[in-house]
Order: sequence, then C-alpha cells, then structure tokens
Amino acid sequence: MPLDTDASQVRSQFNQVGTRPLRPDGADKVTGRARFGADTTAPGMLVGKVLRSPHAHARIRAIDSSKAEALEGVHAIVTRDDFAPRDDAHADTLYNVMAREKALYEGHAVAAVAAMSTSVAQAALALIAVDYEVLPHVTDVDEAMGEDAPVLHEGMITGGVDPAPEKASNIAGRCEFGHGDVAEGFARADVVVERSFKTEATHQGYIEPHACLASVSPDGQGELWVCTQGHYMVRNTCAALLDMDVSKLRVTASEIGGGFGGKGVVFIEPVALALARKAGLPVKMVMSRDEVFRASGPTSSTSMWVKIGVTNDGRMTAAEAELRFQGGAFAGSPVEMGAMTAFACYDLENVKVVGYDVVTNRPKQAAYRAPGAPMAAFAVESVVEEVAERIGMDGIELRLANAAKEGTKSSFGQTFGPIGLVETLEAAKAHPNYAAPLGENQGRGIASAFWFNFGGQTSVSLNVNVDGTIALAVGTPDLSGSRASMCLMAAEELGIDYDRVGAIVADTSSLGYNDVTEGSRVTFSAGLATIAAARDAVAKLRARAALTWDIPEDAVVWEDGCAKPAGANAGEFEPLSLAEIAASAGNTGGPIAGHYECSAENAGPGFATHVVDVEVDPETGVTSVLRYLVAQDAGKAIHPSYVEGQLQGGAAQGVGWALNEAYIYGADGKMENPAFLDYRVPLASDLPMIDTVLVEVPIPGLPYGVRGVGETSIVPPLAAVGNAVSNAAGVRLTSLPMSPPHILAALGGGGDD
Amino acid sequence: MPLDTDASQVRSQFNQVGTRPLRPDGADKVTGRARFGADTTAPGMLVGKVLRSPHAHARIRAIDSSKAEALEGVHAIVTRDDFAPRDDAHADTLYNVMAREKALYEGHAVAAVAAMSTSVAQAALALIAVDYEVLPHVTDVDEAMGEDAPVLHEGMITGGVDPAPEKASNIAGRCEFGHGDVAEGFARADVVVERSFKTEATHQGYIEPHACLASVSPDGQGELWVCTQGHYMVRNTCAALLDMDVSKLRVTASEIGGGFGGKGVVFIEPVALALARKAGLPVKMVMSRDEVFRASGPTSSTSMWVKIGVTNDGRMTAAEAELRFQGGAFAGSPVEMGAMTAFACYDLENVKVVGYDVVTNRPKQAAYRAPGAPMAAFAVESVVEEVAERIGMDGIELRLANAAKEGTKSSFGQTFGPIGLVETLEAAKAHPNYAAPLGENQGRGIASAFWFNFGGQTSVSLNVNVDGTIALAVGTPDLSGSRASMCLMAAEELGIDYDRVGAIVADTSSLGYNDVTEGSRVTFSAGLATIAAARDAVAKLRARAALTWDIPEDAVVWEDGCAKPAGANAGEFEPLSLAEIAASAGNTGGPIAGHYECSAENAGPGFATHVVDVEVDPETGVTSVLRYLVAQDAGKAIHPSYVEGQLQGGAAQGVGWALNEAYIYGADGKMENPAFLDYRVPLASDLPMIDTVLVEVPIPGLPYGVRGVGETSIVPPLAAVGNAVSNAAGVRLTSLPMSPPHILAALGGGGDD
Repeated sequence: MPLDTDASQVRSQFNQVGTRPLRPDGADKVTGRARFGADTTAPGMLVGKVLRSPHAHARIRAIDSSKAEALEGVHAIVTRDDFAPRDDAHADTLYNVMAREKALYEGHAVAAVAAMSTSVAQAALALIAVDYEVLPHVTDVDEAMGEDAPVLHEGMITGGVDPAPEKASNIAGRCEFGHGDVAEGFARADVVVERSFKTEATHQGYIEPHACLASVSPDGQGELWVCTQGHYMVRNTCAALLDMDVSKLRVTASEIGGGFGGKGVVFIEPVALALARKAGLPVKMVMSRDEVFRASGPTSSTSMWVKIGVTNDGRMTAAEAELRFQGGAFAGSPVEMGAMTAFACYDLENVKVVGYDVVTNRPKQAAYRAPGAPMAAFAVESVVEEVAERIGMDGIELRLANAAKEGTKSSFGQTFGPIGLVETLEAAKAHPNYAAPLGENQGRGIASAFWFNFGGQTSVSLNVNVDGTIALAVGTPDLSGSRASMCLMAAEELGIDYDRVGAIVADTSSLGYNDVTEGSRVTFSAGLATIAAARDAVAKLRARAALTWDIPEDAVVWEDGCAKPAGANAGEFEPLSLAEIAASAGNTGGPIAGHYECSAENAGPGFATHVVDVEVDPETGVTSVLRYLVAQDAGKAIHPSYVEGQLQGGAAQGVGWALNEAYIYGADGKMENPAFLDYRVPLASDLPMIDTVLVEVPIPGLPYGVRGVGETSIVPPLAAVGNAVSNAAGVRLTSLPMSPPHILAALGGGGDD
Repeated sequence: MPLDTDASQVRSQFNQVGTRPLRPDGADKVTGRARFGADTTAPGMLVGKVLRSPHAHARIRAIDSSKAEALEGVHAIVTRDDFAPRDDAHADTLYNVMAREKALYEGHAVAAVAAMSTSVAQAALALIAVDYEVLPHVTDVDEAMGEDAPVLHEGMITGGVDPAPEKASNIAGRCEFGHGDVAEGFARADVVVERSFKTEATHQGYIEPHACLASVSPDGQGELWVCTQGHYMVRNTCAALLDMDVSKLRVTASEIGGGFGGKGVVFIEPVALALARKAGLPVKMVMSRDEVFRASGPTSSTSMWVKIGVTNDGRMTAAEAELRFQGGAFAGSPVEMGAMTAFACYDLENVKVVGYDVVTNRPKQAAYRAPGAPMAAFAVESVVEEVAERIGMDGIELRLANAAKEGTKSSFGQTFGPIGLVETLEAAKAHPNYAAPLGENQGRGIASAFWFNFGGQTSVSLNVNVDGTIALAVGTPDLSGSRASMCLMAAEELGIDYDRVGAIVADTSSLGYNDVTEGSRVTFSAGLATIAAARDAVAKLRARAALTWDIPEDAVVWEDGCAKPAGANAGEFEPLSLAEIAASAGNTGGPIAGHYECSAENAGPGFATHVVDVEVDPETGVTSVLRYLVAQDAGKAIHPSYVEGQLQGGAAQGVGWALNEAYIYGADGKMENPAFLDYRVPLASDLPMIDTVLVEVPIPGLPYGVRGVGETSIVPPLAAVGNAVSNAAGVRLTSLPMSPPHILAALGGGGDD
C-alpha cells in the first residue's frame, strides 16, 4: 500500500508541526508514576536470577542443578537443556541468551532460577555446580586477529573472502567498499596523512536496567511486559526460541528508561518465559547494573587505519581505511556500517574501505546510536583535521571543498539526493561559537558526519472518538518523545489541536507489526504511517459528510478540521466539524478509523557538523568542554525541542565516549569497572549548554520531508572532541578515551605515536 | 463501509465453524490465573469506598465531610459537589452514581472516600455527617402509580401521553403497540382468558462484583482497569461525567465474571476516577455483595394483565396486554421491549399492548438478558397455556397454529423475514422429553419466546504475524466464549486452523469504538466485522502473491489457506501459503492487516421453545425440575458448545427467577435479602442436565447467517416453569417466584386468584 507521494500531497505550511507542546508522557515521568520494566507485578510472581560464567572462555563439561532444585522455594531452573539447539538466524541469539558448549565471556548466562524470593534465588544459584574447563581467552581485536589467538568458534571461516580460508579464525567476515583507484589518487596528492587509531568499547549507559515480567498459561499462551525498543522483535524472537506460535505470545512495552540501541535485542526475556513456563507461575527478572555491564550489549572496540591524500589547494585525491571491529563473542559487529559511513561526507574519486568483523571473549555487542559510525568518523575526521592543518586550510573550508552533495556517489554506492551537509557546514561557520576566541590550553575541534537513517515496517491505527478527539495507536516504543511528534502530525492532517490527539504504544496483539525503534526510523516511518492513516480517516470523514449532505464524495473537501462542500454543484451546506461527524458516526456507518501499514522507503540521510571548544589542564590532564555546537539537517523538525534534545543527547554521549568511557578488562578477561562509579558517564556539571542549529533540507516527494535525527548526532563528537583536545594539547591523540592519565602521558611523550 | 452482501459472499460449507475447540481463555479461568476486575494493582494504590443512603427516600440537606477529611490516611473525599450538574443524556447516570438533591433508594451513593486502607476508608465513611430529611417512599409498581403515592421526581411528567398530564407522577412514560381491532377480535372468540400477573425484581447474580482500578495523571490523563461489558461505554460515560476529552481516558476491560446485562452501565467507575484525580494516586474500588444487591441494577418488578381470545379450533382472534414495569429510581424500565416482545411469537390480526414505565424507591434497574421480555412472556405464555387447556388443544399445536413466520407482521410493526419459531416448535414436539410419561404431582410446561437480537457499532483488526499466525483484536468483552467464535470465523475465512488464530479484547486506545457486549450482538456483529476484516486481509494477501508472481491481482484466488493462480492467463506457480506470504511481507510492502468498522444491521430475530417437566411436593411446596428442553434457532452455530452453554445458562437463570429469586423489601423500603444465602440462585444440584436442540435458519444475505443466541433462552423459562408448576399443582399460579411458601399457599387456597 504505497503512500500517495505525488507533489500535491507534500505539505509545506504547518499549523501544528514545528510547535513545542508538552509531551503526553511528561507528567507521569517527572512525577514517578510512569511504569517502567520493573514497575509491574502479577499474583504469585516469582523472582528470576541468572547464573553467569566467571570465566572469559571455558568449556562447560556439565551442569548439576540437583541441589538447587531441592532448595525450598525454588520453582524452576533452566539451562541449555531447556532450549532446543538451532542453526538458523536465531542461533547466535539463543547461544548468547544461554551458553551452550562453551561460556564465551565473563557474564555469559549458564543457568537461571525462578524462586519465591531474591534471596532464595541467589542461594539456589550458589548451589548450581558447573564443571568448567577454563580455556585461553582474547579480548583485544588486534590480538584476536593474530595467528596464535585462541579461537572462539571452531567452525568460524571468514566470510566475504575469496577463496574462503581453510582455517577457522576469529575473523567472522570481511567487507570492502569503494571505487576509483586509490594508488593513482595518492600519487596525485601533495600531502598524504595516514594514522592508526584505537577506540574502546562503551556502553549505551541507559538508566533503566533490563527488566521484564513473563507469564505462560498451562495451555501455552504467554504474556510479557518488558522494557524494550521493540516489543514485536521480542515477541517474534522469544516465540522462535521457545517454539511458540507468534499468535500465542502477547508482549507489552513498558515505558523505557533509555535504550540507544542496547534494548533492540533480547537477553533475559526468553529466559523469563522459559522459567515461567516451567514454573507455571509468573516470573519477574531485573538485571543488576553489574549484569548490565557484563552481560548486555556494549559497542565494539576497534582498531583502525586511515590514509587521506589532498592537493595543496584542498582537493582530496584519495582516501583509504581499514577497520577492525570486535563484536564480542558472536559475529555481527557493525564494521560494515562503519566502513560504509567512514567517507560518506566526501565527494571522492578514489576511495577504498576494508572492514573486518572479529569475535573476542567479550559480551556480544549491541547497537549503540549509529552503530559503527562514531568510531569510523573518529579516525577519518581526525585525519581530515590533520590534513587541513598540514595544508594550512580552515577545517570547515576543507570540508566544504570536498563535501558530499546532491549527485555525489558515496563510497558505498548510493548516489545522494538532496542532502544538508553543506548547509550544516555553513551554519557552523556562521555560528558565533566558531568565532569565539580561544585562550591558553584551549582548542577547537570540528567534525562532520553522516548517518543513513532507516525506514522499515510500521503499522498505525487512528480512531476517531465520539467527541471528535483522536485515539492514535502506534507500535514503536517511545524513546524520545515520538508520541508527541505523532500527535502533532495527526493533528496537522486532521486540522485539529495537538491536545485533541492521544497517542499510545499498543501491544503486539492489538496492532500490526512494527520494527524496532532504532535506525532513527520512528519519526520518519511511523510519522509517514500516521500521516497516511490520518488521510485515510479524512477520506472517510469526507464520505460521511457527503452521505449526510447527499452529494458526491469528491464534492467534499477537508479544511480546518471540517468537511466543506466544494465545487459548483456541491450545494450550500454549513461545514461539518470533525466532532460533529464523529458524534453521528453510529448513524452514518459506524466507527471512523484510519489505518496504514507499510515498509517505509526513501528515508533520507542525515548529516551534521559539530564544533567543540575544550580546555586541557596540563597539570591534571582533565579536559573541560567550553562550548559545543551541533548543526544538523532534520529534513523537517516536527517537534523542534525534541529534535534539539536528540542532538544534545548525542553530543553528550559522544563527549563521554571521547573523554572517559571505556570497558576495562584485566588480564584474566574480566571487566574491572562494571559500575557507574568506575565507568564514568558525563554528568550535567561536566557539560556546557549544547547549542543547536536545525537545518531543514526536506526529503523530496514525501509528505513533510522528515529525516531521522536520533543517531547522526553521536557520530561527530569522538572526532570533534579528539580534534579539540589534540589542538589544545598540541599533540595528536589517536586513541580513546582521552582520559586524564592518557592525556598526561601524551603530553609527556609528545602524543600517542 | 457496507459489507459486501451479495449472494456469492454467503458461505454454506464450513471447515472450522461448527467445530468445538477449547476456548483461549479457558485454561486461565479454570486455573485461577485469569485477571478479573479486582486482580490488578498499582504502586501507591488507595482503597475507595462509598457511603450509601440508609433511607429509601430522603432529602439531603447537607453533607459535612470535614471530620473524615481530617482522619489520618484519608486522601480524598468526593460528594455531589465534585460533579458538575447536567441535564443531558448522562444526567440520570450521574445522579444514580452520586445522589444530588435526594437519596432515592436505600444504597444510593452520597459520598466516597479514598484512603490508605479499607479500615481507614470505612472509619472515614462513619465520620461523614449527612443531614437527611426522610421522606415517604414507595417500592411497589402498582402503589407507585397510585394517586397518593410519594412522587420521586417533582418534575416528572409522563411521556408518550397526549395531551401531556398536568401533574407530576411516578409514571415516566407510556407506550402502545399493536394493530387491528381487539374488541372486534374478542367478539369473534369462542374462549377468552384474561389474568393479572406480578413478577418480582431479580438480580443477574454474576459471581464477580463490580471492581475497577482508576488512575489520573497530574496532566489529566486517566486510565481505568475495569470489569465491564463495555469498556468503550465506560470510557465515553466517565469522560462525559468528569468533563475529560475521550482521548484522555484509556480503559482496559478485565476478564469478566458474569454480566448478563448488569455490567453494561457505570456505578463505581466515575467515582473511582474522581477520587483518583482528587487524591493524585490510583484508587481501587470493589463492591461488596451487599452493595451489588442494594446498589447495582436489578430487573424491573412488574404488574401485568393479559387477555387472549381464541376460536374453538385454535385460532387466536385477539390479544391484549397492559404492562407496568418499575425501573427503580429513574426512568428507563424495559417496558417498551416487554411490550414489543409480548405477542411477537404470534401471527395476530388484532393486538394491542400498553406499557407504563414507573419509578420507585429502588435501585435504578439495569439490563438483564432480554430486558423486559421474560416477564411479558410469563404473562402471555401462561394465558396461551390456559387457552390451550380450555379448548382442549395441545400447547405446541396451538402455538403452531398461530406461530409467527416469514411474512408475519408483528405487533410492533416489523414484518419478519425467515425465522425459526415453527422449527423450534417442531423440534420440541419431536424430542423424547415431550413424550416422557409424567407421574403424580408432576407437570409439563411449554413456552415459546422471541428476542430481537441487535447489531450495533463494531471495530475489528486482524493482523498477520510473521509465522502466518493471526493476531485478532476485537473490542467486545468476552462474556461467553466470543473470542473462540471470532477465531473460528477468522480461521474459516483464511483457510487455516483455529489454533493459529489468537484473539484478544483490545483496550479503548488500541482499537476503534465498540458498543457494549449486550443485545446478543457480539457473535453477529463482531463476527461480521471479523469476517470482513479477514476478507480485507485475504485481498491484501492475494495482492502480495500477485506482486510476487507479477500477475494481476484478479488472477489470484484464495483457497485452502493459500494464494493460487487462477484463470487461463495467470501462469503456472506453486501456491503460496499464508505463512509464506507472511514471512516475506517486509519485502512486499510491509505488515499485512485487515480492518473493518461498521454499524451492523439486519440482525435476525431469535425464537425458542422450552419444555420443562417438574414435580411439586405438596407437603413442602418444593419444586424439582425433572427435565428441561431448549430448542432454539441459532441461524448458524459458530461454536455449538458455547451456543448450547448460552441456552443452558438462560434456562438455569430463568428457573431461578421462576422458583426462588426475588428482591424482598421491608415496609421501611430496605432490601431484606442482600446476600446469596437469602437470595437463592439455583445450584447445579437443583437442575437436571438441560437438553438443547439447535435449529439453524440462517439470516439471508449475510456471510454465515448467524443469529444472536444469548438472550432468547431466558425469555421462556418463567412461563414454561410456571405452566409446569401450575399443571403439577393443579392450580394456576400467576405471580413469581413460585417458592415453597407461595406454592403451599396456592395449594391451600386454590391458586393465586
């Protein structure tokens, strides 16, 4: 059912869209009434807890849970034996959720208990005897690629290589993108800069730990209340892992205290359902912070090499990169997206990027805002900045001279339509921050960045209530005010006030399928579906007016929230308001609703330019962020405050990633800082007000031209902050995080090299 | 959006419909896991309790709640002052929910408290000082119509009378139906029988008391979990009474432990919301059984007069009746429906029925299965039986000789289409029960009956899951297995197994409007909408197959759960199953769904004939039911077991009404038996297995021809049991209940007359 995208359907004047009303979930969230993953109960509910591997790599010879089963108050224990082995697309998910032959990282689940209380559950965990054969482990990506590295998966043959290797390794896959002849390009360059970079794994740092409440009836029907970015994904995945019909599992998404990609996969949910099914009682599971760090999905750590050649007048002649991303214990690091995004900001004749997807004895990585792109941008934009310095050109000017624009063929093959990179560079250049004077030990960093933005499957229903208010049902968990944005778009189409539209996130049994809230897809694709559902409802409202007036449907137009007769032969009638038509719906054919299901296509790429000023204290190595500017293309900002919030949040998380955050592993392969005291995210006091400039270059042909904004803003900060710190410190830093000890060492030694 | 009702859409061969699978809510209900109205909680939840009038009729001079407000643990108190007065369609509902100038019956709510515990709430109720001016009261319908009766509503001028009376009375309205000339008809009769009858008010006797949990956020958004027959009705009514936008109130229906009509109105729900809004915390309210009896909605008690004339060869020449129904403290007894149904089983040339709607100092009546019809049938069918006795004709033969059939113009003006009354009479005649020999003190009673059956507004969505299973969302609370019936119809249309369809009752924010589950409308109208939604989905499934095969949509048919190419030019393709099309939906346009909203019309009338054998113990007056047969027209029985269950349940409730159940009022206007020990419903041990015969006379032109079955079966039992008891006792009894003291008195005195 394609949305009518002819030009007459494109809107450029708005009454509701672009305003900044309060979000419908706001009052409940600030008063503590909102119900998150752990905020529900069921009669007879048990507590579920997971036994996790203390070893980074170990064969599981045997599991003896007999003593635990005998403990008073224990209702069920599940291990690998409670899940049927599989070799399909869900296999890695299953074996991450519950270890099979081997524990592949410290924290890997090996058993789980449902008991009458937390203390009984924990006592039971202590009674489960696991016979481990401890194996050598590897956690560093470069070491994991070494010839002598311990191999995690005996059958892992690198994909994407022709001919295929004969020997198993930790390299799950190789990808390559590019065009032209980089050797020829570098030969034409006046200046060539190449450098190697490393970044550490970071965590999304959501406030709310994973939590769920599962229940399975004796006849096999299940219910799950869960904090997730995608309750349909949870439903489909859990149904597969537990061999249930999808129709027999109903999943309701709680409010969500942050996700950022890390709640787009399952961890405890299938375990909770398996325990509930076995126990015959509801089971609640809530991860501790320690478990979140050790056993949910952080980002990849990376090792990267970048080379860029440029003429003295600032024209890039060639660019090349090699990216090595470890994705934890299973294949699937975001290296391919890192490789695709690496040079996407530039219009290059000669470009080549090679990526390696590597497994290590770490938790399986999960998405984290623009997966893969921030690290690649860190490497590329650091070199771009160094190139600008070397030829004595302003960083923004160099980027403008080479910027991707409409018609540019990207390194990954897409030829861009209208995009807003140049506009963000111009906005940054014009902003007062860019002219602010810098003092001693202060430096400025610039970085631009690209993110794809996705569309995907979406279902929306819009129901007209008897008083002319609207009940809007969407199926995408609201991470960032999307309900408010949907209400604005529905109100815009219907010609009524925002306040007259109520939006909810419907459960999986009430509304059709929706992809996960990720890929910056919701305001774009659920927005498209909301607009289309509203237009479907408007068509029906017009038909009811036509019926009431006994004139043809095409003699009725919808304006200002009213049906009006239109055209010479339509006749003279007083307009009928939405509320009037709604009040008589029972007599004109029944309830009035609009529906839309789609795979949303033509999502438009997002571009941003960040400018950050820092001061580095040479005595302590502490970096203070003085100013931060985000200029980003939103296509059309539906609710500007929430767009700005996304931009600010991305910058804040990126600052943390750049300066402090890192998974620290000991030689024993165990994480040494699994708590927010030791894993330091930025506090409000660490940051200045983050300035934002919204550029609006609409996607052509779509109703409002909205671009996703949730991810692009985390792509530049690693590089922008790195460039600023390097400028302030007077030495080039090439690894993250740029924490005080790291900076002090670099100041002492003249940089990372 | 009219359903396509051309003949090609009518189905007569079924694979799923007519089978008897287990219902999806069964396991949870028999294991105690199902969540009813009281089975949910919210953090910080308060307990709400209602202060009720101890007087049957009293002016409320003042309410002083200051002492209660000062009690520790009391969070909110509401009285009449917390609800804006109104004079619209919701006025009586509001004034029944919370008394205004006067308390109009014992149990009428005058204030409510939300407190930290039940004991604090009850202590607070005791501290609320209400200054009553006690007024004379009236509870009997005939007394209430008397010249000197205390008048409940000073402004009540009888409606339906021309010219309108000058003086206020307790008669809210008068209605009249009929045609022909009854005087002329009686003049032609060989035998005329006329009698007066009285019936007592009874309660629906649902196991689950009214219960709800209300919450209102600081920004005015409300949520309500409630046991109800119609959560959309609850939403719309509560929003009106609390002056909220409908879009700001989300109502979820719990499982329901019986309703039978009595849960199609609000009592505590607006009070709970008002308390929650005032307290700023969630409020749970659960009625006690005492409150259910005193302050929910029982049936009308009645006083009736019926006269029928007949020729010696069994042709009815005229029929006349006057019905007086008291509906409690507010207008709206079901006398109009009683008057319309009274003679609907008969093809009469001359017929006249007059009805009076009377108010008394009793709780406002609510619907109870086929409202009004059982009492009218009791009176009419008692006289029919006596007429048959007088002319020496078999009761079934007399009914057959006068039975309504296709083309009959009913007393209320409808000319019937194809109906099944004759078929039920023939089925009863042919059944072994009708030939069973009767012993001493035993008697047989026959009664036939009619019920309209309704359609109404309905919304259904049907979503195709990735594995080809179905998520079916309906909005009609499931009182009697309707989810199972919907699954059968969806499975039938899609050509898949019943077990592959999951059905839920969606909340008011997730699905479009649905009328209350009442009027025997659900299997008919939600069934129609389910069939139409499934056909909508099938059209989309065919389109996806056509897209996959690159052939026109009309070259694809849907057979046996698969898309198949059809026609000479369609080409040769392997059939695509529902599961296969579902698995690739993301690549062929997105999620696949079917939707339908309608005001369902053309519901077909239901007819039934009951035959009951009883034995009356002349020493104790106790009646034992020996055999019971229900023959009823179901149009098409979707799930025969649940149709039979409805028939058996109607008979069981009717037996209770006939033999034992009654509201007993003292001279003080207070109910004397508000508990199941004193208000005696039939136990399983009181009843034989109730035999059923399903007659199927489909409604023409509709897909399956389904007729509602939930109400017709309670219409005949009062008369059938009354006739059997009269036959066994040898005296004619004309008032209900025919309890042992009543029967003993009648045996002693030669009947009621």
